[in-house]
Amino acid sequence: MESSPHVVDGTELHLNTGFVKKILVDFIRDQIHNAGFSKAIIGLSGGVDSAVSAYLSREALGKENVFAVLMPYSSSSPESAADAGLIVKELGIHSEIVEITPMVDPLIASQKITDNVRRGNIMARMRMIILYDRSLMFNALVVGTSNKTETMLGYGTLFGDMACALNPLGDLYKSQVWQLAEALGVPRRIVEKKPTADLWKNQTDEGELGFSYKDVDRLLYYMIDERRSDAELVSMGMDKGFIAEVKKRVTMNQFKRRPPLVAKISQRTVNVDFRYVRDWGI
Amino acid sequence: MESSPHVVDGTELHLNTGFVKKILVDFIRDQIHNAGFSKAIIGLSGGVDSAVSAYLSREALGKENVFAVLMPYSSSSPESAADAGLIVKELGIHSEIVEITPMVDPLIASQKITDNVRRGNIMARMRMIILYDRSLMFNALVVGTSNKTETMLGYGTLFGDMACALNPLGDLYKSQVWQLAEALGVPRRIVEKKPTADLWKNQTDEGELGFSYKDVDRLLYYMIDERRSDAELVSMGMDKGFIAEVKKRVTMNQFKRRPPLVAKISQRTVNVDFRYVRDWGI
Repeated sequence: MESSPHVVDGTELHLNTGFVKKILVDFIRDQIHNAGFSKAIIGLSGGVDSAVSAYLSREALGKENVFAVLMPYSSSSPESAADAGLIVKELGIHSEIVEITPMVDPLIASQKITDNVRRGNIMARMRMIILYDRSLMFNALVVGTSNKTETMLGYGTLFGDMACALNPLGDLYKSQVWQLAEALGVPRRIVEKKPTADLWKNQTDEGELGFSYKDVDRLLYYMIDERRSDAELVSMGMDKGFIAEVKKRVTMNQFKRRPPLVAKISQRTVNVDFRYVRDWGI
Repeated sequence: MESSPHVVDGTELHLNTGFVKKILVDFIRDQIHNAGFSKAIIGLSGGVDSAVSAYLSREALGKENVFAVLMPYSSSSPESAADAGLIVKELGIHSEIVEITPMVDPLIASQKITDNVRRGNIMARMRMIILYDRSLMFNALVVGTSNKTETMLGYGTLFGDMACALNPLGDLYKSQVWQLAEALGVPRRIVEKKPTADLWKNQTDEGELGFSYKDVDRLLYYMIDERRSDAELVSMGMDKGFIAEVKKRVTMNQFKRRPPLVAKISQRTVNVDFRYVRDWGI
């Protein structure tokens, strides 16, 4: 297979795609079935992350049990919608289009919100509202689409695109999602296009973050998975300022990765001593 | 002090209110300051839970650092708004009224949503959108208002009223929130009124749940905090069917209390091996 421009040069982020695919398909099937459900629902953006979640879910549950919801905003790129439509067609899964413009615009107009970040958060959270409404309606669990790079950097909206019941991609860096996408047969144009949250015109992830996925994935891998010290990272050729910037982002965004902090008063506090239902025999 | 009709008869849920107040005030102050913030923002419904969160936050941070957002819907009871206004006046904190009707109605109309639960979820999540927008705008952390009874029973909207950065009430049963409210000097009419999510007309928590807070708090306390067996609970005079019903609710709603499940692939997975930022030396 011809190598994608996105696949990293080194070997540290190389994925055994066959093995990982099996783990993730089993994860989706087992977790949804164990929770007493049989269906998955996914917000499909046209990007590679949600495409991979949809491919894995279809493999796990069958095409009749996967619902895709396409939720464009007026400024969303038509290419995104076309790519989402292509995935639906390729997979033969159920799909629905819900335009969020008539929901978002009255809100941002009444609140006079012009700031891009505030607008982006509102769009992401409005999509969560629709997705969770459909989740209840169809008795389907929301399968997440946030990868490990985004999760670590806090590059996502809490209670928005980060909201899900289970997430097959949360432990894969973006570079690894691309490898898996190729292995799954996600259409090449979706794997190769520039990643974007598509919340405003000409937004690209790498432009907004100020560094490339290739560089940050390599740094995050050694910093987090391998627990390397700053000195070791520098000796691998990584820039000191870049290390500090990324470390700060990871630290500042810890709140997006943890459930709300509950003040401890009793013997058994949610997410402190009361964490597993099986603890008390059910 | 005259005893409130809501305070339980037994002693198992009795709160040392002076001690608990100190723990919770310190919790709010320490957690907000440690995270690098100085302000709190709270969605004020007019009910006793959000009133207690507001009283504690004002004590912790000073009145100039607490923002209350009142977010009525067209069907919300005028009494709720009046009670929320009373709390703002008593505490002298900043406040803002944001009507959610013009945001909710286009959504439920376009989606033809008539079901009360689906409508209620949308209202709760729309309020989260406003609260988190203001959180970013004012650089203030969202202080939660969900008590332990609601959290255990799953009687709340995930990513809606359950969304917060920190929650001083999450380990207090409703019966205990009432005791604390009295000790804090929350106006009597707010402590004594029937609890309601006020999502539709004449809704009351106890009517919707089908049992009283007094009964369920006692059961939850012995079941969860004291880890008593079913046989022991029955020997305390609790009904077998009631025990089974509550246990089922607690189990079914575990997903609302835990962060999204991430499939494990790497050495360090979010919320599995990567849980504390201090683990890696920051």
